[in-house]
Amino acid sequence: MRSKLAIKPATAAPIGIFDSGVGGLTVAKAILKQLPNERLIYLGDTARAPYGTKAGKTVARFAVECVNYLMQYKIKALVVACNTASAYALPALRERFGIPILGVIQPGSKRAAAETPNGSIGVIGTSATIHSGAYPKALRQLAPGIQVFTQACPLFVPLVEEGWIDNPVTHEVARIYLHELIAKRISSLILGCTHYPILKNVIAAICGSEVKIVDSAETVSQELSEVLAQRRLLQTKKRSHSSLQCLVTDIPDAFIRVGQRILGSELGSVRKVRVMEVT
Amino acid sequence: MRSKLAIKPATAAPIGIFDSGVGGLTVAKAILKQLPNERLIYLGDTARAPYGTKAGKTVARFAVECVNYLMQYKIKALVVACNTASAYALPALRERFGIPILGVIQPGSKRAAAETPNGSIGVIGTSATIHSGAYPKALRQLAPGIQVFTQACPLFVPLVEEGWIDNPVTHEVARIYLHELIAKRISSLILGCTHYPILKNVIAAICGSEVKIVDSAETVSQELSEVLAQRRLLQTKKRSHSSLQCLVTDIPDAFIRVGQRILGSELGSVRKVRVMEVT
Repeated sequence: MRSKLAIKPATAAPIGIFDSGVGGLTVAKAILKQLPNERLIYLGDTARAPYGTKAGKTVARFAVECVNYLMQYKIKALVVACNTASAYALPALRERFGIPILGVIQPGSKRAAAETPNGSIGVIGTSATIHSGAYPKALRQLAPGIQVFTQACPLFVPLVEEGWIDNPVTHEVARIYLHELIAKRISSLILGCTHYPILKNVIAAICGSEVKIVDSAETVSQELSEVLAQRRLLQTKKRSHSSLQCLVTDIPDAFIRVGQRILGSELGSVRKVRVMEVT
Repeated sequence: MRSKLAIKPATAAPIGIFDSGVGGLTVAKAILKQLPNERLIYLGDTARAPYGTKAGKTVARFAVECVNYLMQYKIKALVVACNTASAYALPALRERFGIPILGVIQPGSKRAAAETPNGSIGVIGTSATIHSGAYPKALRQLAPGIQVFTQACPLFVPLVEEGWIDNPVTHEVARIYLHELIAKRISSLILGCTHYPILKNVIAAICGSEVKIVDSAETVSQELSEVLAQRRLLQTKKRSHSSLQCLVTDIPDAFIRVGQRILGSELGSVRKVRVMEVT
């Protein structure tokens, strides 16, 4: 059996956030709002992004390599802010690293199930996330009577990264992807990819006001807050300004451009790092 | 100085083709047509694709790692069938590996310059390829009086991989990307990304019959044929059927689906391999 890395917990230690690219900043933003005293270290694997078009095993390997890199910062908890990595890598990460590790699928599913106890739920995400079946599995465990319909939307991420947020093309692509889900009369729609909240207005306009849009970022933050409190790991010392340090494996223009759009402010320093293979 | 790997030339040795993903099969197809007796080994770095959104240094590092892997097959020549890698990685590859190495930018530029000696040329490609300025540089060296206009088209690759070839959305995206180039009254348009020939009909319909569409696949094959002949490396032994072996670093559905569309036939075996870091 592989021995877990020994970590000394400390309330002052940072929280690690891992994502395939820039989309996870939607989760980082929610965590900064919920836990303003915490220090966040974000790692986006932009050199190998996107994950959503790739095989589960490959995604799990990449995730282990990235989190192994983050461990040098002695993070006290990890949020996997990428739906595809949450779908494929959580068991491997939990086996290897001895800190609390939260994904985004369970919190998003919990919220949707709570809000739609008897209805039917739609889930959209990358090809890999939808192919994994992770959302239907989580939702059916939470609310066995629920009906779940899924749809992969592979063009949403490149449209966001191209900055075509209000473009009529994006509206038309969303209409094509969503019309079957709408025909199923879903009550809620889970945005199962961290890029999708950026398209929330377009998606909501097509779905209509009767469909509740569920984004897991806020629920993950609440859950993280509870986990840290239970383990007495919450930072209580007040911080005068939010602390987010961004690390990336490649610096594409899109990271800065999309990142600033997500945070609604300057990103601050973004440092390129080299993530090594883990065997 | 780093010593080059010693390679024993042999006419029976295979030709290596390297691409970030599946698009380079458009080049492989042209080479199989031009040189039907040769054996091709294709490596697509699908685990880290696309390259076109990434930084030049990262692309160069990935290319060196992939070609280092291909060298174990004792390839007698290499075609870098990826415009982004051709734009950023040729010097590093030529310094390290002692075999003939051809990119796609020089041959595509040669053809366009020959066909448009006094006109103006448009170039479309990924963000990284356009950002590199490699096409304008190559074109101006070949025909100093020529005018060159460029346009990055980041959504074309995901549209091809989603299979939306004849979709009205793709037509509209192409119209948005191309309208400024058309307004410049270009005589030729270079398809500076190996995925784009799959969208040739859409692109040609928007450009109109007065714009010549230039795809480098055929010119690269001719140049490869000349290089092998000069070095007496051409395989003269007749082969009863074409030989293409595909290696990939990840097997996404899109590789099989898009690959078969490109080749117009079954892909045969596609084997997943692990490319290691090179320091």
